[in-house]
Amino acid sequence: MTSTDDALRTWFNTLQLKKCKEVIIPLHKALNRILAEDIVAKEDLPRFNKSAVDGYALKAESTSGASQFKPAFLQTTENDEVNHKQAKQVWTGNPIPKGANAVAMIENTKGRDGKIEVWVQLAPGENVSRKGEDIKKGENAVKAGTRLKPYHLGLIAALGNSEVRVTEKPRIAILSTGNELAEAGTNPAKNQIFESNRVMLSAMCHELDAEPVDLGIAKDDINEIAEKLKTGLRKCDAVITTGGTSVGGLDLVPDAVNNVGKPGVIIHGVAMRPAMPTALAMLEEKPVMILSGNPVAAIIGFEVFARPLICKMLGMKKEEPRPMLKAMMARKVATALGRKTFVRVRVLQKKGEFLAEPVSARGSGAISTMTRGNGFVIVPENREGVTEGELVTVHLFGDVETVNDDV
Amino acid sequence: MTSTDDALRTWFNTLQLKKCKEVIIPLHKALNRILAEDIVAKEDLPRFNKSAVDGYALKAESTSGASQFKPAFLQTTENDEVNHKQAKQVWTGNPIPKGANAVAMIENTKGRDGKIEVWVQLAPGENVSRKGEDIKKGENAVKAGTRLKPYHLGLIAALGNSEVRVTEKPRIAILSTGNELAEAGTNPAKNQIFESNRVMLSAMCHELDAEPVDLGIAKDDINEIAEKLKTGLRKCDAVITTGGTSVGGLDLVPDAVNNVGKPGVIIHGVAMRPAMPTALAMLEEKPVMILSGNPVAAIIGFEVFARPLICKMLGMKKEEPRPMLKAMMARKVATALGRKTFVRVRVLQKKGEFLAEPVSARGSGAISTMTRGNGFVIVPENREGVTEGELVTVHLFGDVETVNDDV
Repeated sequence: MTSTDDALRTWFNTLQLKKCKEVIIPLHKALNRILAEDIVAKEDLPRFNKSAVDGYALKAESTSGASQFKPAFLQTTENDEVNHKQAKQVWTGNPIPKGANAVAMIENTKGRDGKIEVWVQLAPGENVSRKGEDIKKGENAVKAGTRLKPYHLGLIAALGNSEVRVTEKPRIAILSTGNELAEAGTNPAKNQIFESNRVMLSAMCHELDAEPVDLGIAKDDINEIAEKLKTGLRKCDAVITTGGTSVGGLDLVPDAVNNVGKPGVIIHGVAMRPAMPTALAMLEEKPVMILSGNPVAAIIGFEVFARPLICKMLGMKKEEPRPMLKAMMARKVATALGRKTFVRVRVLQKKGEFLAEPVSARGSGAISTMTRGNGFVIVPENREGVTEGELVTVHLFGDVETVNDDV
Repeated sequence: MTSTDDALRTWFNTLQLKKCKEVIIPLHKALNRILAEDIVAKEDLPRFNKSAVDGYALKAESTSGASQFKPAFLQTTENDEVNHKQAKQVWTGNPIPKGANAVAMIENTKGRDGKIEVWVQLAPGENVSRKGEDIKKGENAVKAGTRLKPYHLGLIAALGNSEVRVTEKPRIAILSTGNELAEAGTNPAKNQIFESNRVMLSAMCHELDAEPVDLGIAKDDINEIAEKLKTGLRKCDAVITTGGTSVGGLDLVPDAVNNVGKPGVIIHGVAMRPAMPTALAMLEEKPVMILSGNPVAAIIGFEVFARPLICKMLGMKKEEPRPMLKAMMARKVATALGRKTFVRVRVLQKKGEFLAEPVSARGSGAISTMTRGNGFVIVPENREGVTEGELVTVHLFGDVETVNDDV
């Protein structure tokens, strides 16, 4: 069986993904979009020397030797230029007038009849935000491939941009297969279960800023699956299926994929747990991911294959990491040698230490292991588990309860 | 000056926030919304005992003593019931037929002419996902107040729900003030800077699933500010302003707030850095937050006051934590006693350890300290800083580069 790394490499090498399309959108709609151009500063930020405080702009040397017991006495001025022993009132953000090189905070002064006392000695540049100290003209302020967070939008606006070029959202078709599946909200037959993968994988696409397209549920019928695959390929940039991929039983979806075209299935079966029966394919030069019908395996298959794929399609320089932390295993967990294993844990904070409790589940298919947990510990192929007390990296998918013991 | 904790407590006590409105929406639109009802399982999940593998359902006792050298010989059946020494083929997810209590994996069997050999001894329940093992009927599967992540949606669908009751998005009006501000995309006057707070704070509202409403830029004019405030109060559930709040200089916005109504400003000046000149108010029984015009102080003011407010308005049980981790300070940072200080750091991973580098910035107003950093270290009021090598909690707002050294 192929390792996850080899599977991903082989699949990506076959795919030869094209550069994604780009679109210019208003900045206020760009949260979480992927920047498609470098944002290079057209001028310095700040654009001019400005006051960082409310107070009096002056020549620093006018305050030489000043203290609370020996204030410097200065004349206030309304002129555009400040001379020796002069001061001009400024508010935070105001340009520093010509001739001035420092600002005395208003709290350190006392003003009266066009005169002020200054009680501190100022150094040149003190309380001045210098032109270009945030970003220099010509500097690459935000790089192409960045996911735009609120503070990126702020910086891009501060540089004068009201629009931004981002990559288009890749469209991902999502199909569930299986006679046993009933739509949530309907009355299932006695031997049916409610389908839950589409809503979950669609949400995972949204989280990455891809656009899911629902292909519904297909019966365990090779022709019906093939028709739905063709619809997905026509409408979308990639297709994800769940179910019908067991290595031991019916290989309906891989067979349907191979009926639709070449090269079809590239990888079938990956050395991981769960999600071992995952298959990776290409049709019409588009990626096709054939995930397990088991909801947890579908999530982890998405995590390992769809997530890096979508990051690549979006033009990100590398896969976006989940938040992570180091935690101590609260119990040992045994894993199978030769299988990369995704252990679900619940991270708690006890006495300032992060502790990772494995989420016990009889059935690996139990979706409640995700709602009860908040992270994965990824045990590599060459390990047979993790020991109690071992310090492990947890990749978080949920919240860790707030610490009250800052720092 | 009031501590952040006291400021928040006093403000919340005055506000007496009402219970937020609720709305029923389709499950596929519910990502990141806040659940307004407990999701109680109406039946067991799984709904019936089902096979966890592809193979043969049988009575475990029929395989007593079986091994590769001494297989158990069973008759296959198509009947609804499995008797002693019988086996019925099942695929993953199929109901376990009556009489059977275990499933032999197909890999551990060999079938021929209505007969199979089973090479392993099975225990009762082996390879069976038991009815209710994921969630029991009557169990509270997802609690009201939860932010709905993909796996919550999956679990809610698996329990048969296609719709879900969530809290309505609170509407937050956002106003920037200051004569020095020009709209991004326009030609600023020589002494103007580009306004960048609205796009940033709007995005921070979106991240929490609140609905920002743009009130534009007001000049430094108490009447203009008051009019805009009234518009915000008419249209929205809360108002955020930035600028015009300096303690030392012009208190335009606090004055405008007090002109609009009672009680007006409740807290003015908070013992924190940055964002010291933050003010908190109430008008028409709605919260009003008066943040600094400095972009970084505005972000941190939002973080400390707007974030818990919005979480409360959304009906969350407590404030949503940011992802966090423990990291070692790469350098010492001095902070002022009596001020809760938000130190921006960049967390890197070196040799498996997380290291927090303070992001140096001459100007605390530099928004690039946010784009260069990825987290805050919050130094409490009773500390004068953090030392080099100290293990601190970092509250992450950006990505930490991927670790390759799992576990």
